[in-house]
Amino acid sequence: MRFTSERRLDNGVLERGFTLGEVPGILWTPDSASASAPVPLILVGHPGGLDRMYPRLAGRARHTAEQGFAAATLELPGSGDRPRSAVTDQARADLRRALEAGEPVGEELIDRLVLPLVEKAVPEWRAALDALLSLPEIGGPVGYSGGVISIGTRLAAVEPRISAAVLFAGSFVPRVIFEEARQVTIPLLVLLQWDDEGNDRQMALDLFDAFGSEEKTLHANLGGHTGVPQFEGDAAARFFTRHLMG
Amino acid sequence: MRFTSERRLDNGVLERGFTLGEVPGILWTPDSASASAPVPLILVGHPGGLDRMYPRLAGRARHTAEQGFAAATLELPGSGDRPRSAVTDQARADLRRALEAGEPVGEELIDRLVLPLVEKAVPEWRAALDALLSLPEIGGPVGYSGGVISIGTRLAAVEPRISAAVLFAGSFVPRVIFEEARQVTIPLLVLLQWDDEGNDRQMALDLFDAFGSEEKTLHANLGGHTGVPQFEGDAAARFFTRHLMG
Repeated sequence: MRFTSERRLDNGVLERGFTLGEVPGILWTPDSASASAPVPLILVGHPGGLDRMYPRLAGRARHTAEQGFAAATLELPGSGDRPRSAVTDQARADLRRALEAGEPVGEELIDRLVLPLVEKAVPEWRAALDALLSLPEIGGPVGYSGGVISIGTRLAAVEPRISAAVLFAGSFVPRVIFEEARQVTIPLLVLLQWDDEGNDRQMALDLFDAFGSEEKTLHANLGGHTGVPQFEGDAAARFFTRHLMG
Repeated sequence: MRFTSERRLDNGVLERGFTLGEVPGILWTPDSASASAPVPLILVGHPGGLDRMYPRLAGRARHTAEQGFAAATLELPGSGDRPRSAVTDQARADLRRALEAGEPVGEELIDRLVLPLVEKAVPEWRAALDALLSLPEIGGPVGYSGGVISIGTRLAAVEPRISAAVLFAGSFVPRVIFEEARQVTIPLLVLLQWDDEGNDRQMALDLFDAFGSEEKTLHANLGGHTGVPQFEGDAAARFFTRHLMG
């Protein structure tokens, strides 16, 4: 991991850009973090495109830092300045066509759209975890928050260092991810926008049902994909504080 | 309204038993409530049987009082020492038989089970509201919390003095109540126990969908009917503080 930029935000949070191999990322650490008082970490997911998502990600990270957590995020494969994937571009075009034609979105298309992304992203986030947890100012435990729910689900299933996750049910989910959801046992908070135009509500409810966790909570709110109410940010912070602090 | 008992709890909350006509009830007011500083009110719903429910109701009322709310509850028709209803007793026996035989619970039975209760209880709670709001130490606004969801739904639909409600999706809902749910416009927090043995999950999701409110949130948690997690009490308190305070 190589730090490429560093600046101090007005609330004392240290924001550092980094690259991990070819993958750019951002790390935010609260003022209080130090080698003698390392802080727990939240991995901040997103749909891809760090530059475009920066204002929302930085807002979430500031909020998180105020609760005493470090926060980190990585660019997704095929997004931002990273090399595009012909397979994913084709799948996105096919999805657009299917939605415009009012056709059902079949499992084969969902697999093509989501699985290559999951298969590439998950090892990258795990490698980032190796690097981040080796920093003296970051301890553990680790939470994962938001982003593409299939990435979050596989990470929660395969990465034992992740202790709690807030997942956003906002995208298509391949069949194989439902199977992996049954292997997830960490506490979960799942957010669902009830009238999300690009999301299948029943699929989201089925996925919530599939998770193997003994503590799982679904928060559904009215409104579309980007309409998650402000108070859910507070609810997520309380969820992580309950599970990752003390 | 006639007060029949009065005692001070250890946290300073004043607990008073009362009767309203033939209907017994309990009122809890925080230490801070006075004619010069009247407090908002939460109506505390329950499934019937004040004596049996007292420990849980008093626990909720103490929590509510710590947030600066008064809390009040009424015995339900046919419960506790109130005259039993032959119609309701018959419907309960029919329900037990249907569930034991693994038969579907039809709309006619749900109507017989729930509607007479709703039709009797709702005017009683509205009369209690008249009496409670005439006390100098109680101001407004008013919230409604928990209990039989059909009673809460009709109250929210017909009683303009109720400004926000936390509803517990834990019992059968007559078709007519779904229609009334569309008339509800106040902010709602709906709690659902995902594996509630006595509740139809799909019916609960359909009812959540039916509410006409622009702000409505569903919190679903794992576990059975009585397994609502402790942190949902805090979430309900925050919901009421957001909508009824300041």
